[in-house]
Amino acid sequence: MNLNALFPSNLVGSILTAVVIALVTWLVYTISKGMINRMVEHKLKNQDENNARFNTLSSLLKSIAGYVLFFVALVMILGEFGVNTSAIIASAGIIGLAIGFGAQGLVSDIVTGFFILTENQVNVGEYVTIGGYSGVVEETGLRLMKVRGVSGDLHFIPNREISSLTNHSRGNMQALVDIRIAYDSDVNQAIQILQKRCDELREQLPQLVEGPNVLGVQDLGSSDVVIRILARTENGEQWAVERELRKELKLALEQADFESPFPHQAILLQKK
Amino acid sequence: MNLNALFPSNLVGSILTAVVIALVTWLVYTISKGMINRMVEHKLKNQDENNARFNTLSSLLKSIAGYVLFFVALVMILGEFGVNTSAIIASAGIIGLAIGFGAQGLVSDIVTGFFILTENQVNVGEYVTIGGYSGVVEETGLRLMKVRGVSGDLHFIPNREISSLTNHSRGNMQALVDIRIAYDSDVNQAIQILQKRCDELREQLPQLVEGPNVLGVQDLGSSDVVIRILARTENGEQWAVERELRKELKLALEQADFESPFPHQAILLQKK
Amino acid sequence: MNLNALFPSNLVGSILTAVVIALVTWLVYTISKGMINRMVEHKLKNQDENNARFNTLSSLLKSIAGYVLFFVALVMILGEFGVNTSAIIASAGIIGLAIGFGAQGLVSDIVTGFFILTENQVNVGEYVTIGGYSGVVEETGLRLMKVRGVSGDLHFIPNREISSLTNHSRGNMQALVDIRIAYDSDVNQAIQILQKRCDELREQLPQLVEGPNVLGVQDLGSSDVVIRILARTENGEQWAVERELRKELKLALEQADFESPFPHQAILLQKK
Amino acid sequence: MNLNALFPSNLVGSILTAVVIALVTWLVYTISKGMINRMVEHKLKNQDENNARFNTLSSLLKSIAGYVLFFVALVMILGEFGVNTSAIIASAGIIGLAIGFGAQGLVSDIVTGFFILTENQVNVGEYVTIGGYSGVVEETGLRLMKVRGVSGDLHFIPNREISSLTNHSRGNMQALVDIRIAYDSDVNQAIQILQKRCDELREQLPQLVEGPNVLGVQDLGSSDVVIRILARTENGEQWAVERELRKELKLALEQADFESPFPHQAILLQKK
Amino acid sequence: MNLNALFPSNLVGSILTAVVIALVTWLVYTISKGMINRMVEHKLKNQDENNARFNTLSSLLKSIAGYVLFFVALVMILGEFGVNTSAIIASAGIIGLAIGFGAQGLVSDIVTGFFILTENQVNVGEYVTIGGYSGVVEETGLRLMKVRGVSGDLHFIPNREISSLTNHSRGNMQALVDIRIAYDSDVNQAIQILQKRCDELREQLPQLVEGPNVLGVQDLGSSDVVIRILARTENGEQWAVERELRKELKLALEQADFESPFPHQAILLQKK
Amino acid sequence: MNLNALFPSNLVGSILTAVVIALVTWLVYTISKGMINRMVEHKLKNQDENNARFNTLSSLLKSIAGYVLFFVALVMILGEFGVNTSAIIASAGIIGLAIGFGAQGLVSDIVTGFFILTENQVNVGEYVTIGGYSGVVEETGLRLMKVRGVSGDLHFIPNREISSLTNHSRGNMQALVDIRIAYDSDVNQAIQILQKRCDELREQLPQLVEGPNVLGVQDLGSSDVVIRILARTENGEQWAVERELRKELKLALEQADFESPFPHQAILLQKK
Amino acid sequence: MNLNALFPSNLVGSILTAVVIALVTWLVYTISKGMINRMVEHKLKNQDENNARFNTLSSLLKSIAGYVLFFVALVMILGEFGVNTSAIIASAGIIGLAIGFGAQGLVSDIVTGFFILTENQVNVGEYVTIGGYSGVVEETGLRLMKVRGVSGDLHFIPNREISSLTNHSRGNMQALVDIRIAYDSDVNQAIQILQKRCDELREQLPQLVEGPNVLGVQDLGSSDVVIRILARTENGEQWAVERELRKELKLALEQADFESPFPHQAILLQKK
Repeated sequence: MNLNALFPSNLVGSILTAVVIALVTWLVYTISKGMINRMVEHKLKNQDENNARFNTLSSLLKSIAGYVLFFVALVMILGEFGVNTSAIIASAGIIGLAIGFGAQGLVSDIVTGFFILTENQVNVGEYVTIGGYSGVVEETGLRLMKVRGVSGDLHFIPNREISSLTNHSRGNMQALVDIRIAYDSDVNQAIQILQKRCDELREQLPQLVEGPNVLGVQDLGSSDVVIRILARTENGEQWAVERELRKELKLALEQADFESPFPHQAILLQKK
Repeated sequence: MNLNALFPSNLVGSILTAVVIALVTWLVYTISKGMINRMVEHKLKNQDENNARFNTLSSLLKSIAGYVLFFVALVMILGEFGVNTSAIIASAGIIGLAIGFGAQGLVSDIVTGFFILTENQVNVGEYVTIGGYSGVVEETGLRLMKVRGVSGDLHFIPNREISSLTNHSRGNMQALVDIRIAYDSDVNQAIQILQKRCDELREQLPQLVEGPNVLGVQDLGSSDVVIRILARTENGEQWAVERELRKELKLALEQADFESPFPHQAILLQKK
Repeated sequence: MNLNALFPSNLVGSILTAVVIALVTWLVYTISKGMINRMVEHKLKNQDENNARFNTLSSLLKSIAGYVLFFVALVMILGEFGVNTSAIIASAGIIGLAIGFGAQGLVSDIVTGFFILTENQVNVGEYVTIGGYSGVVEETGLRLMKVRGVSGDLHFIPNREISSLTNHSRGNMQALVDIRIAYDSDVNQAIQILQKRCDELREQLPQLVEGPNVLGVQDLGSSDVVIRILARTENGEQWAVERELRKELKLALEQADFESPFPHQAILLQKK
Repeated sequence: MNLNALFPSNLVGSILTAVVIALVTWLVYTISKGMINRMVEHKLKNQDENNARFNTLSSLLKSIAGYVLFFVALVMILGEFGVNTSAIIASAGIIGLAIGFGAQGLVSDIVTGFFILTENQVNVGEYVTIGGYSGVVEETGLRLMKVRGVSGDLHFIPNREISSLTNHSRGNMQALVDIRIAYDSDVNQAIQILQKRCDELREQLPQLVEGPNVLGVQDLGSSDVVIRILARTENGEQWAVERELRKELKLALEQADFESPFPHQAILLQKK
Repeated sequence: MNLNALFPSNLVGSILTAVVIALVTWLVYTISKGMINRMVEHKLKNQDENNARFNTLSSLLKSIAGYVLFFVALVMILGEFGVNTSAIIASAGIIGLAIGFGAQGLVSDIVTGFFILTENQVNVGEYVTIGGYSGVVEETGLRLMKVRGVSGDLHFIPNREISSLTNHSRGNMQALVDIRIAYDSDVNQAIQILQKRCDELREQLPQLVEGPNVLGVQDLGSSDVVIRILARTENGEQWAVERELRKELKLALEQADFESPFPHQAILLQKK
Repeated sequence: MNLNALFPSNLVGSILTAVVIALVTWLVYTISKGMINRMVEHKLKNQDENNARFNTLSSLLKSIAGYVLFFVALVMILGEFGVNTSAIIASAGIIGLAIGFGAQGLVSDIVTGFFILTENQVNVGEYVTIGGYSGVVEETGLRLMKVRGVSGDLHFIPNREISSLTNHSRGNMQALVDIRIAYDSDVNQAIQILQKRCDELREQLPQLVEGPNVLGVQDLGSSDVVIRILARTENGEQWAVERELRKELKLALEQADFESPFPHQAILLQKK
Repeated sequence: MNLNALFPSNLVGSILTAVVIALVTWLVYTISKGMINRMVEHKLKNQDENNARFNTLSSLLKSIAGYVLFFVALVMILGEFGVNTSAIIASAGIIGLAIGFGAQGLVSDIVTGFFILTENQVNVGEYVTIGGYSGVVEETGLRLMKVRGVSGDLHFIPNREISSLTNHSRGNMQALVDIRIAYDSDVNQAIQILQKRCDELREQLPQLVEGPNVLGVQDLGSSDVVIRILARTENGEQWAVERELRKELKLALEQADFESPFPHQAILLQKK
């Protein structure tokens, strides 16, 4: 059977066919809009804050569906009136590819952004490192992320630029301090003094989750011996703990009369 | 029905058909121009300063629509006169692809530029870092951005070169100063003196939004102890505040007779 | 024979044909779902922990199969009613390519992730270096891997970012220590003392699998001679062993009255 | 109607048709040449110096139009004589793509060059940094740019290599001088002396547009204090001004008996 | 002739044709499997250890052949029943391309791996540098290579990551030692002493294949003269030989009372 | 009209048609060869030395034209005998693309090489920097360039590797010398002495085109003041002039009893 | 005329046609093999050593020709029996593209290798730098090059990795020596002494082709003056000549009682 058979093969019939095509297209468009709404709602039901973003997503999808359906219906109606449509389709294809290349980045942004959001990789307010920029997330968007750097700068990072991503706000952090003593000092005694002070600090600093412990001799420098101390703290407290450890452990060694680990040099005086 | 059925199948009929095609094409072109105007106006209604730019955009879109419609109509008319148009379409396709590759950068410029503008990522006069260049934005265009570097250079940056972007003119900035004291000095006393001077400076410097505060021992250098001071200032005032802090905190330590943190070296004289 | 021949060539016949197409498509879809289930189960029968992940995989494959079959059936039914479907297919092709480009990364993630899992390259809890990030694997997923860095950071690494991969938790590890002695010291004696202490340490440190042994003079520095000691330890114990070796070997040389390897300089005093 | 209907369906008719095709093609070619001339002239009416370049552009476009029209006419005439032209079109397509890939760079050169010229990004004689090369522009071409480096080298830079571009010859330039004083000197006094000398220099140096002003303490070095002075000069005069500032400000401090900012070192003599 | 002509043009005939197509496809599939077996066996007849790997290869090829033949037969049978198959083929094409992009890496792995194996570039147990990782090859696979680093790490390197490759286990190796003497020493005498000691060592070290020989003055340092000694050793012995040479040549110079090559500095004391 | 109508529709007729196709193809081939000869000659009429190279180019183009025409004629003749040629064309397309990818580099070499030659960017014997290699051009070819490095190495650089290009043999060169004086010296007097000696040297060195002139204080070092002298010399003489300037200006300062600009250090002796 | 017209339109006729196609294909295959043999022989007639390599090339080309002809004949025969071959061709196209992508590297290897060999860029035994690896060429192959590094490593370099290439074994080499003298020495006298010694060495060293000559003052260091000496030697002798020059010129200056160019430092003692 052929749709054309419904109507007499003349101008009136062609117009009738065109009207049918237009009606069906309008019907399909209405259904598509409903489906898009439901689909977007479904994916986002537990992300209340993202309303604005996904309104954008849903209206973007609807626009695309509308333009595509309009083009298909137009070509079919023109064909109904005997127009040779191959030139139109070819032109549309080339323009479509051109726009496609240009919009490729946009598609890539949206796809990547979608996964970052639904996989809960970052939340607003977390401290992250993304695409070489570190800072606190201010806004996560469909197309880009706004990250406030520590210095106050505002970074705009298109989602496509984000490959691997580091989130610094999940779980306890490590505090690591290297204490140097003079090369000729008594290493065993230094370790004892440091460990004793570490044990006292554990009581005084409530942010400490684990340690601090003296690991041992990390490096034999050219004029000093490096002793490493490690602790684990609550998230965000690692820098404060490190600063406190540095000050207190240095004082502990000073009180025990350890020599300062200045660079040493042996000099041979030669006569000219 | 077939359009050809309207006219007798001879030369006169073909010419009549061609005239109809030409008229319809002209009609479509006129409507397209109106739609483009409305679309561009709609997107840009609240960006008054961008008139020049979007006249360019609108006339560019109109040119493209005109050339495409002209080509489609030409091919259809030629086909009406029995010309085999597959060679023409194939040639047009290859040329179209060639131009498309060449113009790909242009499309990419326009798409990226469009988002930078509509998402309000930068405004003229803001201090930004874009594509490795820092400076004040002088002009934001459809195809490129002009950034005036601090040294006076004028950078022309095609929008496609812009991926991530840092805006330094949004919100308060951080002022960070590291003060070094000699390794053998009394760290606790130094911190007290510095914090006291910081408190005085908070009164004197109105650009300060928060702090300055002494964070603690940031680093144990080879001959010095580094103490970090942090403040938050109004945008653009961070450098002036840092300079003032450096001078005043150095003077505060000098007045308290702290030793200068020159490099130290322990010398062992050896006989030859 | 032609399917159309089964039904009279009119509207009723077309509708009947459409119903047959729809039924067959539904049948194919049901069978496809069964096959996908069996295939995914087969590949994953010995990976019990991955249930969640491969439910995702299986439902993803089913969605794709469903959409493709729906589209094919739709086009065939429309064609049955005399609709010219070339414009639809062309539009679908361009949209498909556009989505394909956008989803390319996703496909790449899944393929790479599939091989990393089935080839047992990493297990949860192992210490690895992936895509420039080091840490303990917290979760291996269909699309990304979560790695907990030593400092406590949580890295999200899309599988496509993983090319070569280093697993630090398979097999015994090497402990390597370089001990420096003063340039003028007796090298042979130093090697004897170090080797003797190494032999004693082999008894005391149960984590040692092989060695430690003195390899010899690794480098002649500007003021020192570098002697290299090598051991092999149980996995994860290499750093503790290195720290112990550093401390003990330094003490051994001190007890034998070896001079500290400070930088030396020969000075020529000149008169002005 | 069909063109073939005009002539009897035999060899004579085919030849007649071919002649008509050839005539029409020649007509189209003549019109195309006119249009290309007008288009190129229109775009370039206010760029008198570029005659040579755009003659090249116009004759290039005419050649391409000629070859394309010749190929289309040939295929149509061959088809008229019953030749199966699909193999010819396929071959032409592959060769066209091959040449297209090869000539892609050329197209890219011309497109980029076109925008650099029409947007007035560089003029002959300006000092620019393009694609990693700095120098004075000697020639701007359709395909490449010739830049004369400061050292006398001549750089040939294809336009496609130019992405972002820095023009050093637009507007006033910044002169920035860092003056170091000894760490123990009186900073406040030094700033006063420097600012006073700056004020005197403002009178003496007519190239100065703004400043010079003492900004303050830019850095606390290991043995010195860095004081930054900033001025704004006419274009091209920044280096001369910086040299003059360096000499005069150093002399000003010398006259005020400030100590030279040599590196300092504290020495602890130790007995062996 | 047409296959359809064999059967009456009705449903029974279509089913018969379909059965014939299915039988022929099954036949072709059986033959293909045999050919794949023979081909893989032929290429691998002298690589006994690779059985497991090439079973994988052969079953992979068989799967692909099976899926392709099944798809072709399906489309042909559907076409036999009057189904319009262009939508199916188009969908298959797009999905095929999508999978193809995803599997591109896999194909690349297999092709590269095939050449590495058949060209005998690496064997299990050899010490190699591949894609930036150095270590002993533990396993060479169809898709990746496992390399055990010197430190005990296990590197998984997909074959596609391997471009150039260095094998350290083929042939004799070079041992190169640079000996420094004080700038003021007698260079000629030093060279004589070193060469004499080299000649003695040639007798004592059986791993030496050629040399060691004193090449001459390699560099005039700021306080020393660098003399280069070169030897050629059995594979794997180069590091041991270098260590022995360093120790012995240093001792030889010490015994001849050569001054140690410490950094020298000329000091000019100035009065303030 | 249709070519087939000329001959009876049987085997003899088909053979006759095939002969006609073959003759026409041969004719087209002969004409093409003539056109290629003329085209290549025209482009190269004023480049006498390039005969060998462009014989290669011309015979390469003729080969390609021959193969293409042969393939087109073959397919047309086969079609004449009723062979279905779509499989042949498809195979040729895939092979053509495969070769095309492989030969892409070759096409790129020839296109780039063509422009480098016709734009007179380099001549044999000039000193250039191309693709990271510096040296004298020994041969410019259709596919690669041979550059003799200063050290005697011969670099083979495919033309496609050449993007931007620096020619050091066009025009006068700059000679730039930085003279350091001690920090405490009299800067004004030093500049006078240096300028006076520069004026004398202008008379003695005929290679000088402009200068030498003392620019002023280029840098304030940690123990010295850097004074910059600039001259412009004939091409290739810049290094000799710089060496002469260095020697003569140093002597001029020595004769005027300027202190040598050795590094200075202020020492603070501390008691332990 | 149509080939089918030769045979009755039934099963027997189809089989006959198929046999004819098979025979013609076999004929074409035999001719192709002969042509490939002749072509390969022609290109390689003066490269006797490359027999093995080009046997590989020739049998590779024959395999490809065989598979392509087999596929074309198969499709044509299947079409003869009324099979719809579009699905087969589409599948073959996709598989062909997939293999093509995988084999792209292989094609690229062969094309690049072909040019490296026929253009005589490297010979076995020459010392070259290829793709970042330096060494002596051990084997030049169709797919890769084996280069023996100086240290004894064997590098396998796929030809596609080779872009620019440096051959160190063609022509005379430069020997360049920099001699440092103390800053306060008499530069003119040093140049005279060095030039005199150079002239003597020219007699003693037969490997010298040109020079050695004293160029002049290359650099004014912080405590020394650098004088550059340049010579040109036979290929491979440059390092030996440089070593000899270094030793002899240093001795010449020593004999003339020139001061050693140790680093100098001016010391200002300050009281605390």
